[in-house]
Amino acid sequence: MRATREILEAAKAAAPVLAAASSDAKNKALSAIADRLFTEQESILSANREDMEQAKAALGAVMADRLLLTPERIAGMAAGIRDAAALPDPVGRVLRRVERPNGLIVEKVAVPLGVIAIIYESRPNVTSDAAALALKAGSAVMLRGGKEAFRSNAAIARAIRLGLADAGFPPELAGFVEDTSRDSARELMEAEGLVDLLIPRGGAGLIRSCMEHAKVPCIQTGTGICHIYVDASANQQMALDIIDNAKTSRPSVCNAEEVLLVHRGIAAEFLPKLRERLVVEREKRGLTPVELRLDSRALEIIPGTPANERDFDTEFLDYILAVGVVDSADDAIKHIGRHSTGHSDAIITQDSGAAERFTRLVDSAAVYVNASTRFTDGGEFGLGCEMGISTQKLHARGPMGLEELTSYKYVVRGDGQTR
Amino acid sequence: MRATREILEAAKAAAPVLAAASSDAKNKALSAIADRLFTEQESILSANREDMEQAKAALGAVMADRLLLTPERIAGMAAGIRDAAALPDPVGRVLRRVERPNGLIVEKVAVPLGVIAIIYESRPNVTSDAAALALKAGSAVMLRGGKEAFRSNAAIARAIRLGLADAGFPPELAGFVEDTSRDSARELMEAEGLVDLLIPRGGAGLIRSCMEHAKVPCIQTGTGICHIYVDASANQQMALDIIDNAKTSRPSVCNAEEVLLVHRGIAAEFLPKLRERLVVEREKRGLTPVELRLDSRALEIIPGTPANERDFDTEFLDYILAVGVVDSADDAIKHIGRHSTGHSDAIITQDSGAAERFTRLVDSAAVYVNASTRFTDGGEFGLGCEMGISTQKLHARGPMGLEELTSYKYVVRGDGQTR
Repeated sequence: MRATREILEAAKAAAPVLAAASSDAKNKALSAIADRLFTEQESILSANREDMEQAKAALGAVMADRLLLTPERIAGMAAGIRDAAALPDPVGRVLRRVERPNGLIVEKVAVPLGVIAIIYESRPNVTSDAAALALKAGSAVMLRGGKEAFRSNAAIARAIRLGLADAGFPPELAGFVEDTSRDSARELMEAEGLVDLLIPRGGAGLIRSCMEHAKVPCIQTGTGICHIYVDASANQQMALDIIDNAKTSRPSVCNAEEVLLVHRGIAAEFLPKLRERLVVEREKRGLTPVELRLDSRALEIIPGTPANERDFDTEFLDYILAVGVVDSADDAIKHIGRHSTGHSDAIITQDSGAAERFTRLVDSAAVYVNASTRFTDGGEFGLGCEMGISTQKLHARGPMGLEELTSYKYVVRGDGQTR
Repeated sequence: MRATREILEAAKAAAPVLAAASSDAKNKALSAIADRLFTEQESILSANREDMEQAKAALGAVMADRLLLTPERIAGMAAGIRDAAALPDPVGRVLRRVERPNGLIVEKVAVPLGVIAIIYESRPNVTSDAAALALKAGSAVMLRGGKEAFRSNAAIARAIRLGLADAGFPPELAGFVEDTSRDSARELMEAEGLVDLLIPRGGAGLIRSCMEHAKVPCIQTGTGICHIYVDASANQQMALDIIDNAKTSRPSVCNAEEVLLVHRGIAAEFLPKLRERLVVEREKRGLTPVELRLDSRALEIIPGTPANERDFDTEFLDYILAVGVVDSADDAIKHIGRHSTGHSDAIITQDSGAAERFTRLVDSAAVYVNASTRFTDGGEFGLGCEMGISTQKLHARGPMGLEELTSYKYVVRGDGQTR
């Protein structure tokens, strides 16, 4: 097993080669990597079979499916790499240009970060997705995946390095951490001067650990306690459609709804319709009904589980919805200010004033008017891709596309100016 | 003495009022604050006299002068606040707007950070400068100045709060830390959820302490080991003028030159001219000569102090220059990669290829071709103002103007879209 530090130092040393590479050269490397996923497909599938065998005992069916690779899934990974190649190069963009009265030309130019480290869990496709985005953004990448996908990840990383070499780049640009103990994650978090950006992609535990221990720049991602507030003036049919979509289309993801707030003026009319849609109808159709956890005011109107305080601060990631009744849009905004994780929150309203106040005062990465929170996603926002969803306010907020994976520098050109 | 936590919580609670204020209302508040600096001038000057008396024993003449306030200096502070008011509002700018095929309108909009905390040393004018920029950027401010300027800072902060109240804003928007012990600085560094951005403005010790202890988002500022590389093709007269300016115009600032690298092909011709300019001529004119700390190759050409390895990693902030001879532009780039703090580095050259390689490969906030490193400054870069100079790569790099003191959010408007 190679030492994590050694792999990281090799990635850092190789990074300038990629930083200086043309868009064309980078895209050719991505294309070579995609090709290698096909030519190395057998070794990747065989490594995955070993992982699956090892994991079967420990993992449930859902987790096992996340781990499984098939020729189709590998083809999907290769297509993802080609998609990244087709996106505009985020490096070299001139973000601002001024000519100063003294003749100095000051340009603010997008540049690569250097080394982007990613700590991720379970799904092996993250290995190629994350590497493709980091490399396209001109940075070397350090990949540290989960233990259960180790062999699959290693085989994919090997294909990536072969592709880099095919295109004439140092394979060290894609560093793969061979140590899957907690030590290696901590080592990345503390590698000051070697890791320019650390992105944790996984559960709340991983993200909390990064926030606590990271001495390198780190982006807080993911956790989403997303709210939908149904205003007095809402189109109630629209509200039902949006809530149904936000809660049930994919409950396990961070942009799913966890909390519903309803204006008291329509609660008596709306909550029975809500229960009909999320509980009764779903049961009739043989679908998992949504468990409604109701505050005392909602409980007076419809039956359900009495909510405790924790229910309004929980990312259920399940068919569970906390429901509360509020006195006004401002009360909803206040509740969201106290309980939201700053991911995605929505108002359903026909009142443009309420919509305006909501979008101004709710301090979250994405604020919606009359649409589902499920749209918080790099592709859906037109960024073409994403590395994760930032819930912090510095550097990047919301879906992190290629531009958010770069830094900038000032390039100043003169002909002898002094101050 | 009020508890720091209590002052901070009040600032955080007041922040949404400012976040929702119009540009006009914010500018009126800044104007009211500038007015208050005049009407409260006597109390500010009297507080400053007390600080000066207390400090005289402890401080040297230079430090004492930094602490001193006069009617002219207070007028300068008021003018600075009016300048901030006159700058464009960074909040509310639409940074990107897309209409998606499904009809969703996705806008990326600049928003205030919330609470900006500043830990600073000695100069009391930072109290009003920093407050003006933070407030203009729509954020509440927490001011924590140095012990020796405590009374002056408190009087200025009082004037700021009076001005805020005059304009109908909660005075809590300008929090002033009354505890000048180390505890209060640590408290700000660790106030997760209350401080949205912490900016240390001061010496290397303060900045290191913030980097080590901060649990809140923090920007690394300041330290500048700035290099100038004189290429074989340089206009040597231009090189001398730029080096003289970068080293001697204000040696105590972070954008002053600390290290000179000279191409070996011109070293025998150039180094004697350098010594003539920085040592001999300055002595003749009665100015402090620059102490040249020379590597072994430079020592073979001109007399000077033999440099030890540390000299190439020291921010002298004095009339001292480390001088080395390198084999090529690429060697200079490598040396800078190992020794620069990533602040400002320059090449003097007539060779556009060398200039291009240098600006591409030197990974610093500001990279210069044929100009003095002394230009790294918000005003000189056309940003209108600055809160400090970031030497990190996340969020902001180089001079931090108003735009760098904001975050953004995505505002998504639909008419019932689901995914």
